[in-house]
Amino acid sequence: MTRHFSSDFILGILGGGQLGKMLLYETRKWDITTHVMDSSPDAPCKIACNKFVLGDLNDYDAVLQFGRKVDVLTIEIEHVNLDALVQLEKEGVHVYPSPSTLALIKNKGVQKEFYHKHHIPTSSFEVYSNKEDLLQAFENKVFSLPFVWKSCEGGYDGMGVEIVKTQDQLNTLPDQSCVREDLIPFETELAVIVARNTKGEAKTYSVVEMEFHPTANQVEYVLSPARMSEEVAKKAQEVALKVSEAFNNVGLLAVELFLTKSGEIIVNEVAPRPHNSGHFSIEASFTNQFEQHIRCVLGLPLGDTTQKLPCVMVNLVGAENHQGNVHYQGMEDLLAMPGVTPHIYGKRQTRTFRKMGHVSIVHHEIKEARSIAAQVKDSIQVISID
Amino acid sequence: MTRHFSSDFILGILGGGQLGKMLLYETRKWDITTHVMDSSPDAPCKIACNKFVLGDLNDYDAVLQFGRKVDVLTIEIEHVNLDALVQLEKEGVHVYPSPSTLALIKNKGVQKEFYHKHHIPTSSFEVYSNKEDLLQAFENKVFSLPFVWKSCEGGYDGMGVEIVKTQDQLNTLPDQSCVREDLIPFETELAVIVARNTKGEAKTYSVVEMEFHPTANQVEYVLSPARMSEEVAKKAQEVALKVSEAFNNVGLLAVELFLTKSGEIIVNEVAPRPHNSGHFSIEASFTNQFEQHIRCVLGLPLGDTTQKLPCVMVNLVGAENHQGNVHYQGMEDLLAMPGVTPHIYGKRQTRTFRKMGHVSIVHHEIKEARSIAAQVKDSIQVISID
Repeated sequence: MTRHFSSDFILGILGGGQLGKMLLYETRKWDITTHVMDSSPDAPCKIACNKFVLGDLNDYDAVLQFGRKVDVLTIEIEHVNLDALVQLEKEGVHVYPSPSTLALIKNKGVQKEFYHKHHIPTSSFEVYSNKEDLLQAFENKVFSLPFVWKSCEGGYDGMGVEIVKTQDQLNTLPDQSCVREDLIPFETELAVIVARNTKGEAKTYSVVEMEFHPTANQVEYVLSPARMSEEVAKKAQEVALKVSEAFNNVGLLAVELFLTKSGEIIVNEVAPRPHNSGHFSIEASFTNQFEQHIRCVLGLPLGDTTQKLPCVMVNLVGAENHQGNVHYQGMEDLLAMPGVTPHIYGKRQTRTFRKMGHVSIVHHEIKEARSIAAQVKDSIQVISID
Repeated sequence: MTRHFSSDFILGILGGGQLGKMLLYETRKWDITTHVMDSSPDAPCKIACNKFVLGDLNDYDAVLQFGRKVDVLTIEIEHVNLDALVQLEKEGVHVYPSPSTLALIKNKGVQKEFYHKHHIPTSSFEVYSNKEDLLQAFENKVFSLPFVWKSCEGGYDGMGVEIVKTQDQLNTLPDQSCVREDLIPFETELAVIVARNTKGEAKTYSVVEMEFHPTANQVEYVLSPARMSEEVAKKAQEVALKVSEAFNNVGLLAVELFLTKSGEIIVNEVAPRPHNSGHFSIEASFTNQFEQHIRCVLGLPLGDTTQKLPCVMVNLVGAENHQGNVHYQGMEDLLAMPGVTPHIYGKRQTRTFRKMGHVSIVHHEIKEARSIAAQVKDSIQVISID
């Protein structure tokens, strides 16, 4: 039996951003030795791991050298070198999610085609190799405005996704391989985090409901549990579970879904790692998503995903037109509000819409939590005053 | 207004054990720069602080040099050099708890006399400078067997406290200044954590109930909320609050109390720092004690102390007659139990009764939590198999 705690076992994490940072809260809680690699010397994970390595996550040699020193390797971002992961697996390193799973997800075109092949409900789509093909298809009336455009590779935090409404917008899209999707007139945007360990044991978290910022394509409020019937919530969890099984995913899988106006649950996209939509679990679930991810990849039993009480989460993003050393204005007002816990990711520089932190609001009544969350958003500004 | 988050502000912590380690979870969450000093190179706080300094906490120069580099200085253990703290205050460092408060608490004789002077209910007692005086008083029938003996200085984790039942035990006591207390036939042992910030704003946590190990003088189960009437719970919180105010404490004050068989609340002793009896707050309170202590010493508004759901905590102590590299046997069984979260402090070496970690058990019904906690104790052993 592997001795994970206070031992010579090493967990490697590719990526040193806030998701990795929050994984480190759990590895510190359990005294698990961790190595982290990131390309930035100011990465949030820089302290609290046992060894921090500067390196390019997309570089074959960097990932290979890093991975050879650990027993289990996981990720906090999908944009990593897959060939190195394949080689590491051959050499006996346990990689979760596996490179074969990651390959099905990393490229959004491949991901959509996987749903189609496995009869997982998702919006109609086509995949194009370049902008010319996209424009040609538009000429040929394969699809019409408005529609959703997604870059196949490299999208993150709302980047690489556009709702295209006009010919002008269509003309100014980047020239990249992309996915063209129908724009679904949805009722609500949802997410379900699925945890699945190395033994195939799986659990789902409460369904969360997402309210989005109108233009930045970033989520504003995440409410858990989602305000919906138990029947619909169950349906969403079942679809999410099916997706996780189909991918043979090990670790967390954040499944973003739409509830359509006709009451259908369809899959938007997934991320095989801890996710923004799961941060509520830190204050509000029996087992937070970060501890859960570690249970999964270490082959430990899953923790209970029951929710303790309602929670609303808001993101802290850099205010428009502010860049430089960050100042969290209004923090004292925020801290005086009941049930409010801010999380500061440790990025010293702010810029427009940069994800700098989040705030969790817990309350026994979700309406109250939502109301306090609005006050939180009014009270705090992430600016630069230098 | 002080900028504490992602800034040049520095918080110093004297002591690098598990309490400091858990304070660091919160400073990482809030990106507060921290310096920690401890005399052991293997201290649990070694990683996750920005700067770790090796030094003797009882050495005037070590504490002075360390404290001069920080803006606010706090402690996670009472056994620190007070004169250095007095000098640091003079030089403009904010020290919480203040050396004047610490001086009233650190020496248990001084502490008891403070309660007496301030009409805070506590058991009858005398203070003796040495063993000879204690034995003389016994001869003179000032007190009789059985009684409680407490060393005035240096006691920790149940050390330096004895229930003296026989003449033999009396004769073999160490020769130290000590407190002799009446042995109270109490109903229950309780604790209340009081949080008080620099502005005098104060809040109390739920009353917790402690079940003790018969011989090791260490707590076995901590149940929150305590199983008692609201009326008695309120009384306990009021007494605790009064104690915190009397000491003019800033930060947390863990107040250990007895509920006597006649329904009185009396004070046993206090600790001006995060405390074992408050660990339940991590999984079960709106604001955990560590985040709360930081709010207090930084002069930030206090967080809500409402409890989310019942919690039982058990300590993980080294099994008798095991010393060496630690192995947590039964961890997989423990992790399969619902609502169970282990905390591993990161001490590589175990020994008899050494505090190695704790386990929190949450459940919407306290009876169930207590039952699962018993299973937890049965399933895990902290041993050495090397």
